[in-house]
Amino acid sequence: MDTNLMNINQERNLTMLMDYYELTMANGYYKLGLKDQWVCFDLFFRKIPESGGFVIAAGLESAISYIKNMHFTDGDIAFLRDKGIFDEGFLEYLRNFKFTGDIDAIREGTPVYPHVPLVTVCAPLCEAQLVETMLLLSINHQSLIATKTNRIVRAAGDRVVMEFGARRAHGYDASILGARAAAIGGAKMTATTIADEMFGFPATGTMAHSWIQFFNNDYEAFKKYAEVYPSSSVFLLDTFDVLTSGLPAAIKVAKEIIEPQGYRLKGVRLDSGDLAYLSKKVRKELDKHGMQDCTIVVSNSIDEYLIQSLNMQDAKIDSFGVGERLITSKAEPVFGGVYKLVAVENTETHEFEPRIKISENVEKIINPGRKRAYRVYDENHLSKIDVIALYHEDLSIGNLKVVDPKKSWKVYEVNEGTMEELLVPIFRKGELVYKVPTLEEIIAYSKQQQEYVMEEEKRFNYPHKHYVDLSYELSELKIQMLKDNGEWQ
Amino acid sequence: MDTNLMNINQERNLTMLMDYYELTMANGYYKLGLKDQWVCFDLFFRKIPESGGFVIAAGLESAISYIKNMHFTDGDIAFLRDKGIFDEGFLEYLRNFKFTGDIDAIREGTPVYPHVPLVTVCAPLCEAQLVETMLLLSINHQSLIATKTNRIVRAAGDRVVMEFGARRAHGYDASILGARAAAIGGAKMTATTIADEMFGFPATGTMAHSWIQFFNNDYEAFKKYAEVYPSSSVFLLDTFDVLTSGLPAAIKVAKEIIEPQGYRLKGVRLDSGDLAYLSKKVRKELDKHGMQDCTIVVSNSIDEYLIQSLNMQDAKIDSFGVGERLITSKAEPVFGGVYKLVAVENTETHEFEPRIKISENVEKIINPGRKRAYRVYDENHLSKIDVIALYHEDLSIGNLKVVDPKKSWKVYEVNEGTMEELLVPIFRKGELVYKVPTLEEIIAYSKQQQEYVMEEEKRFNYPHKHYVDLSYELSELKIQMLKDNGEWQ
Repeated sequence: MDTNLMNINQERNLTMLMDYYELTMANGYYKLGLKDQWVCFDLFFRKIPESGGFVIAAGLESAISYIKNMHFTDGDIAFLRDKGIFDEGFLEYLRNFKFTGDIDAIREGTPVYPHVPLVTVCAPLCEAQLVETMLLLSINHQSLIATKTNRIVRAAGDRVVMEFGARRAHGYDASILGARAAAIGGAKMTATTIADEMFGFPATGTMAHSWIQFFNNDYEAFKKYAEVYPSSSVFLLDTFDVLTSGLPAAIKVAKEIIEPQGYRLKGVRLDSGDLAYLSKKVRKELDKHGMQDCTIVVSNSIDEYLIQSLNMQDAKIDSFGVGERLITSKAEPVFGGVYKLVAVENTETHEFEPRIKISENVEKIINPGRKRAYRVYDENHLSKIDVIALYHEDLSIGNLKVVDPKKSWKVYEVNEGTMEELLVPIFRKGELVYKVPTLEEIIAYSKQQQEYVMEEEKRFNYPHKHYVDLSYELSELKIQMLKDNGEWQ
Repeated sequence: MDTNLMNINQERNLTMLMDYYELTMANGYYKLGLKDQWVCFDLFFRKIPESGGFVIAAGLESAISYIKNMHFTDGDIAFLRDKGIFDEGFLEYLRNFKFTGDIDAIREGTPVYPHVPLVTVCAPLCEAQLVETMLLLSINHQSLIATKTNRIVRAAGDRVVMEFGARRAHGYDASILGARAAAIGGAKMTATTIADEMFGFPATGTMAHSWIQFFNNDYEAFKKYAEVYPSSSVFLLDTFDVLTSGLPAAIKVAKEIIEPQGYRLKGVRLDSGDLAYLSKKVRKELDKHGMQDCTIVVSNSIDEYLIQSLNMQDAKIDSFGVGERLITSKAEPVFGGVYKLVAVENTETHEFEPRIKISENVEKIINPGRKRAYRVYDENHLSKIDVIALYHEDLSIGNLKVVDPKKSWKVYEVNEGTMEELLVPIFRKGELVYKVPTLEEIIAYSKQQQEYVMEEEKRFNYPHKHYVDLSYELSELKIQMLKDNGEWQ
């Protein structure tokens, strides 16, 4: 394991980043003699941000790193002891804490859909409870940013998207891990230097308005920059006025300083104003001066909607620097993953017994039982259906009876295509059995996986809703449990 | 200095969390022989989130901690060298980097307004440029969360607000530093255990739905919990059904288990459904059973708007657990602080010469020059006007001529009240000269400061706009500079 993310939690101890109720519950379970009874939790989400067609899963590596490095220090124990409510035996249990359970998860970069578990945890009760917050926090945050970035990248088509959000991120990790999630989502570069150093996500950047303000004049500022960086200058045009000052100065410096040295002006950047209008004017003027290879970068309040609007206006833009609307997922800054108990070990038979949670809101009724999940592809390897099944089921094409949970009366058989398991083993009895991929591998994998997604799921307005069905057996179990709870007439 | 935040950057080296363009610019300044020329930057914001009346400043301690601990490691230097664009002399400069400038800032917890500098940095050019990202990141994030929390706390009045957002935060720091910002904003407790351990912000929590699901029955689950925590039980009522199952079970356990031991049921929690309706029903039933002291906590999608609606419906609620809408500032997740060059040293006179940035958008024109800021209070010590002035000005009541920047023709004199400086010295020639307050001190200070804010600024709809004026001299300077740039007819 040599990715830097895996070491994050060795450098700083985040073990205590957990909701306090996990500790009060765990202490309760301990005192009631229940701590070693195995249970299963599912981590899943119910709603795709911005009514999109799919989510790009991310955050798994951070979660693995946390669980692998979890340890309560003497300081942690002393702090908890001072609370006066924790049993000494429980504190001793925490001091020796090590996760010993099984975890399965969907790989980072996979397009995923509501209700399909992204992570399943089967572990002794206290352990399964204590990892809740960090699993949710890691996966909620990073899936949110990967998904948002992917939307922006889709709108940008073959133009490059760069992540420029550090200054508006919600703290340091939001910048660093947000940049990593943006890479998974398809951004090609970042302004965040440390993300390059840690993950090899290439950092980029040239000048801020302050450079031009310092020299107090576009021409002087560009000239000085070109003296230092003749082959890689990108001039920021809008400090004073794009068309009357920035652009003429950029062309002048290109002709006077850059081209005589055998280089070309690499690009210009627009950071304010009417980007459609200005980009067309700038393109025309650059072309007139034989600078067809000088790229135009824009970077003000960019998101997928603005990019679509710029596309419709035939704006002349080569790449997008995307800041706050990406790094905070401004239009919808919450990804609502939840972590729900779905099964409890019967201490006599050692079988898992399913648990359900009823809600007046049908969407909020939990699918009971320990699970697997499958993805079914058509003859063109397009992803058509996800199937949530019980763990003991051995399903295959031809032996696959499924039910749409919204039309539970309608059972159908899947007899064509291919299928794959979505959840892969991560931990077994506490041992990490998963080879954590590099960021590069995750990016390549995600790109490949996105090719299996139907085009109709990729649009922003009313995308096709991916079918997420239940196996016939899971559906029957759920109906029976609802009947037992008086919820099914 | 014994607050834990000050050590955060000793534990992990965040020095390289900077936008790459800061490094390309700094390398350029170095190569051009400009690195030691002093400059001044202002950090300020233009817009209050959610059109509110004021912002609660936060994030200063994180920023101080970063600047104090900044150091480029051999690994950082080697990484930069591999980029192939940085001068060896510049890399050597980074290896020995130490911030040697002056920083002033407004204290954490202070109510602040648009355009008033929250931080001023006067330092050698490269140094002032390299601290940009972390200053912005720290102050943008934490001011956002402190401000949002403060709105929620104001709506809650004398009821307690608890921060419950960890699982939806944008990464680990967003949870930890977000909890700290929430404390500054007025939240009284947090669910995030590590925030209690680090800052002494009291952690709270009792049970999740998983506790009840595990026992598969409200009564059994509450009974078991009460066995462990007879004096501090808060039962979660909505796992199955609040009125037919959760509430009767809670009352039964209170009577059977808790009260016979001489304790009282501390509280019940509602986490779904119609909180107004349910809270009134629950209150009535609890009271009927002599449980007037049993508190009602609610915790589903809470924000200031929902609290106001619950208030209008006369909902019976004693405290609010606020999660995603607080920790992400969901309604407006971006705080737009910017960092702008305002003055450059004249290398002959060693005086600072002002710089301006023009924009078609009048709001975006920068106030030039190195600055101070004052707050003017009326006879009741209510805060009435903020005044942005030039650093060399020595202003006092009776000697205070100010201009409303939107009505630059209107000069008026302030002859009554008292005034205070807003910006206090933080670093002088790189030395920390500020006694960093404890979180407790910041909370007490902020509470006091909020009492000086006019009630009319505290409402959510069309709050009174605080006057932020320019000193007459600054106003004249700005007008002259606009004239010199052909912007003033």
